Amino acid sequence: MSNEVIGTQTLRKLEKSSTATIANMLLKKGFKNVYMLGLNPLSEKQPKMVGPAFTLRFMPSREDIDTMVNYSLTTNLHRRAIEECPVGHVLVIDAMGSLKASSAGDMMSERLKAKGAAGIVTDGGFRDTPAIKEVGLPAYQKQSAPPATVIALHPIEINGPIGCAGVPVYPDDIIVGDSEGVVVIPRQYVDEIATAAYEATLYEDYAQQRIKDGESIFGIFPSTEKSLQEYSAWKRNNTPS
Amino acid sequence: MSNEVIGTQTLRKLEKSSTATIANMLLKKGFKNVYMLGLNPLSEKQPKMVGPAFTLRFMPSREDIDTMVNYSLTTNLHRRAIEECPVGHVLVIDAMGSLKASSAGDMMSERLKAKGAAGIVTDGGFRDTPAIKEVGLPAYQKQSAPPATVIALHPIEINGPIGCAGVPVYPDDIIVGDSEGVVVIPRQYVDEIATAAYEATLYEDYAQQRIKDGESIFGIFPSTEKSLQEYSAWKRNNTPS
Amino acid sequence: MSNEVIGTQTLRKLEKSSTATIANMLLKKGFKNVYMLGLNPLSEKQPKMVGPAFTLRFMPSREDIDTMVNYSLTTNLHRRAIEECPVGHVLVIDAMGSLKASSAGDMMSERLKAKGAAGIVTDGGFRDTPAIKEVGLPAYQKQSAPPATVIALHPIEINGPIGCAGVPVYPDDIIVGDSEGVVVIPRQYVDEIATAAYEATLYEDYAQQRIKDGESIFGIFPSTEKSLQEYSAWKRNNTPS
Amino acid sequence: MSNEVIGTQTLRKLEKSSTATIANMLLKKGFKNVYMLGLNPLSEKQPKMVGPAFTLRFMPSREDIDTMVNYSLTTNLHRRAIEECPVGHVLVIDAMGSLKASSAGDMMSERLKAKGAAGIVTDGGFRDTPAIKEVGLPAYQKQSAPPATVIALHPIEINGPIGCAGVPVYPDDIIVGDSEGVVVIPRQYVDEIATAAYEATLYEDYAQQRIKDGESIFGIFPSTEKSLQEYSAWKRNNTPS
Amino acid sequence: MSNEVIGTQTLRKLEKSSTATIANMLLKKGFKNVYMLGLNPLSEKQPKMVGPAFTLRFMPSREDIDTMVNYSLTTNLHRRAIEECPVGHVLVIDAMGSLKASSAGDMMSERLKAKGAAGIVTDGGFRDTPAIKEVGLPAYQKQSAPPATVIALHPIEINGPIGCAGVPVYPDDIIVGDSEGVVVIPRQYVDEIATAAYEATLYEDYAQQRIKDGESIFGIFPSTEKSLQEYSAWKRNNTPS
Amino acid sequence: MSNEVIGTQTLRKLEKSSTATIANMLLKKGFKNVYMLGLNPLSEKQPKMVGPAFTLRFMPSREDIDTMVNYSLTTNLHRRAIEECPVGHVLVIDAMGSLKASSAGDMMSERLKAKGAAGIVTDGGFRDTPAIKEVGLPAYQKQSAPPATVIALHPIEINGPIGCAGVPVYPDDIIVGDSEGVVVIPRQYVDEIATAAYEATLYEDYAQQRIKDGESIFGIFPSTEKSLQEYSAWKRNNTPS
Repeated sequence: MSNEVIGTQTLRKLEKSSTATIANMLLKKGFKNVYMLGLNPLSEKQPKMVGPAFTLRFMPSREDIDTMVNYSLTTNLHRRAIEECPVGHVLVIDAMGSLKASSAGDMMSERLKAKGAAGIVTDGGFRDTPAIKEVGLPAYQKQSAPPATVIALHPIEINGPIGCAGVPVYPDDIIVGDSEGVVVIPRQYVDEIATAAYEATLYEDYAQQRIKDGESIFGIFPSTEKSLQEYSAWKRNNTPS
Repeated sequence: MSNEVIGTQTLRKLEKSSTATIANMLLKKGFKNVYMLGLNPLSEKQPKMVGPAFTLRFMPSREDIDTMVNYSLTTNLHRRAIEECPVGHVLVIDAMGSLKASSAGDMMSERLKAKGAAGIVTDGGFRDTPAIKEVGLPAYQKQSAPPATVIALHPIEINGPIGCAGVPVYPDDIIVGDSEGVVVIPRQYVDEIATAAYEATLYEDYAQQRIKDGESIFGIFPSTEKSLQEYSAWKRNNTPS
Repeated sequence: MSNEVIGTQTLRKLEKSSTATIANMLLKKGFKNVYMLGLNPLSEKQPKMVGPAFTLRFMPSREDIDTMVNYSLTTNLHRRAIEECPVGHVLVIDAMGSLKASSAGDMMSERLKAKGAAGIVTDGGFRDTPAIKEVGLPAYQKQSAPPATVIALHPIEINGPIGCAGVPVYPDDIIVGDSEGVVVIPRQYVDEIATAAYEATLYEDYAQQRIKDGESIFGIFPSTEKSLQEYSAWKRNNTPS
Repeated sequence: MSNEVIGTQTLRKLEKSSTATIANMLLKKGFKNVYMLGLNPLSEKQPKMVGPAFTLRFMPSREDIDTMVNYSLTTNLHRRAIEECPVGHVLVIDAMGSLKASSAGDMMSERLKAKGAAGIVTDGGFRDTPAIKEVGLPAYQKQSAPPATVIALHPIEINGPIGCAGVPVYPDDIIVGDSEGVVVIPRQYVDEIATAAYEATLYEDYAQQRIKDGESIFGIFPSTEKSLQEYSAWKRNNTPS
Repeated sequence: MSNEVIGTQTLRKLEKSSTATIANMLLKKGFKNVYMLGLNPLSEKQPKMVGPAFTLRFMPSREDIDTMVNYSLTTNLHRRAIEECPVGHVLVIDAMGSLKASSAGDMMSERLKAKGAAGIVTDGGFRDTPAIKEVGLPAYQKQSAPPATVIALHPIEINGPIGCAGVPVYPDDIIVGDSEGVVVIPRQYVDEIATAAYEATLYEDYAQQRIKDGESIFGIFPSTEKSLQEYSAWKRNNTPS
Repeated sequence: MSNEVIGTQTLRKLEKSSTATIANMLLKKGFKNVYMLGLNPLSEKQPKMVGPAFTLRFMPSREDIDTMVNYSLTTNLHRRAIEECPVGHVLVIDAMGSLKASSAGDMMSERLKAKGAAGIVTDGGFRDTPAIKEVGLPAYQKQSAPPATVIALHPIEINGPIGCAGVPVYPDDIIVGDSEGVVVIPRQYVDEIATAAYEATLYEDYAQQRIKDGESIFGIFPSTEKSLQEYSAWKRNNTPS
């Protein structure tokens, strides 16, 4: 699924690159803190996730403000975040790392899926995780957190800059998730990073084949001038049709 | 499997309700601390667990008391807890959250299974977890803890009130576990909670269908007077045979 | 796969014994701290792991020393550890428990596999974990840690004594891993421990059968003089061909 | 020091009540999560702190945004928060609990003091703590965090609603700190809470005297109808001049 | 202050031995887990604490049981523990390590002091700590925890065996606290341990003097046969009058 | 106290600069991870500490190796580290952050003091801390850890590269400690850093005075070209005699 923020070519390259490789390309540009450490995919089977960030920020709840009645109002930012998340975007939630209450449940995931969202990420946890797995929307969390949201979390801002699992996330930064975890690409660098990551992925496929064939990692990994030349020759002879 | 503490109807309703939904019903009655956060099912495939709590409490072990010889005595409360856990009950263990030594192993799980127990829960960890998975008894823990029990844990009381994963558990409180985790229902409220949770589950099935069909969560989730009326009409036309 | 450090008989016995049972035998000799608590197998499907330890120690990295250029040198101890790990050995990494950067990735695992290593263990985490799973080398970690190694870790010593997940590991100590975790056997006791563990495993098979048949754990688990006699008789009649 | 948000009478009552007693009064109104657990005064000798909250929120920093050059700009919200904090207010900082970088240092504390602020609170840590102690401004933190702010923290919002040490803080909520820690009073309840806390403090002085004289805590603590009558009589005879 | 559980001689020896030295003597008898790690004295100035344990155990509180009304009943075990703690005993509280609510406050400490208790220890925290310091009763905690007890803790048993900060405590075990922390002596070994610790303390005074005079620690610390002979000679010439 | 590794001028400058200011100067050279977060001085009154690092590394202990008998041998590296630490050096201990056993006690501190060491630092904890305070040697730890060293720690290497509290320490790196904590200066940069830190300290004294006099921090902190000129003029008129 493409969208206005990322071009189709870039999207395709990111879909073919692992989060670990993308993080390496960001490191070469000086970004060390881009990986959401400690978050896991809800299901091993969920598809890869790529999309611009749409954010939701929680603060701690308070007994007189976070009542069930208030939660039901149409002004509630938690549900508004679900309804307003644009097609192809990833809803990224700053839950302050809290596992005391859920960042979202199956109804919200179902709705995001129906609206064409690309995924959902929290540095806290979800409730109804067995049902969310069935929904099929890519979802990342620290650990399940089934208690009702109002017990500990109050939604305070939609689509502002946030921290998620210790990583800065600005709206429309590109979020990529695979079965290992989630990485954040500052939006202005996405084309450059996607191209570099895709190239590195091709080289790694080549290098892995040679290592499988019994060669030492010295001279192949990390790449050397010589290995890159050999790779170029190999690539000419092994173009994917 | 029914038993004297819970009626068959109530048991059936709880089997059809998720732990997250049950926690929500308890919240409506003012109970906020009912979910054993941080505990996971040993296996994704294990059946749902419902039953009254039979408890075991550990304190830290001491070198002169917790010897292998003492452990073998028939007075040992760890093994007595296994032998005395009634049919249909869940053995709930207060291991003080300790992962330094095991709360139980495969022999004990096999015996519980043979005696008709409904499951086993610890806020520490088990040993022989691959074998326990094969036994098929629903089992919940924080993380595997294979060292021998005597290294860190001393059994001190059977079937008294305990804390487990930060939640109060009184004997015969109803313990429900699904693939998301474990919730505790104070025993005097079990019928009321089971009925409310079962009703909420039916409504959620309906709501999820409408959201799948493309409707907004506003007006459907949480339910409104209007959505409940529509649900009532829908239910009349969609009675499960 | 046998090797010079462990005899074939001992290797076979360890392959048939669980890590939990091996830890119990070590406890009987007075070793309480032998289980690498908190480490998990990367994949549920990976084969059992047995082999002598070959170690790598990390210290914290420093910006002027741990550059990408230095990392590419053939003197780099991280890659030398991979190339020098002997056939049949387990590479055991002391990452100081750090999850800030990866202890190894898919290229290194592929190379270890190609060279005939028995497995890889870190008290930190790996990167490229989806690819490592496909490699098929038994691998144990605390949690995935995809950021590049240089961000936080500097390799400082190969095959010296280390701590891993709080357990002392001396070179050539025997490392055993199954789906529950990893245990360390001091090398001078490996034959004795393997024999005791294998014997205990056979008894446990017998005991589990009797418990399955409905007997109490009292008198069977732990074993008594009487139960051991009955087991001996049973064993004579149930010799595996 | 009085100000527009709190009246002089209320301020005086709060100055005479302990944070623990204030928390008790808030509990009676249903507020359970009002105490900033884990924060400590920088110095045992610092004066009591009472004032309305003026807030600053941090998010994680990023290498291309949080440069020393950008930090020096007059648009920098970190320094603007210092300059804009009103007389008599407490600067409350949401540092996401991070101890990787400092929430403020001695220059900022000196400036706050010079401008008449009532104190400074962070759920992270300060740098230059020996110098801040000499400044004499009441200051509360989790633990010293001397690395430069830009290493981990980016200022993103002034005087919005935040969480601090897990407690919700809305601008102008009343912050009270003594040598035990920090409590937050929702601003609309401050007069009522101050009066109740002051009354409770007087009773506790009385109760403590009677306990010192050898009476049981039963009947005196918590207060009973009878003990309150005796206290009233005692108070009439022991009015502070 | 002497009492029936410990003789005057033993009490005096313990008062002159540090908790670290006592722990060393217990290690020689095979007890490794006797020091309450992570607990600190409330005040640097509080006197040394020695006395038999009188225990109180908490479990997690529940909203319908732990009301303010129930808390005020004379059957409340929290306050009964205070009233029933015998002269010369140390009240040792198992708060499950919880810092969410207070284990005791100033009124309770004042009453314990008035009744002649020797001290109070919790593995959670106290409230009113500034006032408790003034009371002068030796007090040990993990960290201040000012919220009201009912928020998280329910008293469930008086004077049974407990764990405190991970250490087993049986009623009448001897509790010793100094400015470094708290150690537990199993009651049946108290005379033997006190004598050994006192002897070791005298030797250490001697050894420290020699080290101050410029000698190497080799040959003096730990003691050797030769150094013990020299010490014996020295002791004859340096008897305290 | 000067020594061969640091010149007298450099030593004097470091003695006059705070650890926070030194960390800032290191940041300007690209070093972000130089502060030993979480370590505290044992006493508020201990003198400032400056000296080159002499290191000791621990690994986890093992029951058959770390006996009291082995501990008494003159080959024991723990005690050898004390005896071999050169005059003016700081003994820096990598205890793997462990609080289960002591990194050193009063005898060792007394001996270090007698030999002219500049201080002692561990990322674990000490025993006999009340006595160490009296010794007067600057000492830094995470938290007191009174159990005997053999319970958890085995000394494995003297004066090799280590990590301490997450910071890389190479032998002869310069260690500076004040009442806020400990910072590490890579040895090749010590003169440059000392000079820059001393200059920054002088400017900060000036800036603090101006802020005390009521000026805004904008334009003064961080310094601007203009403020540096004014500072130069001021310095000419305020030279310390």
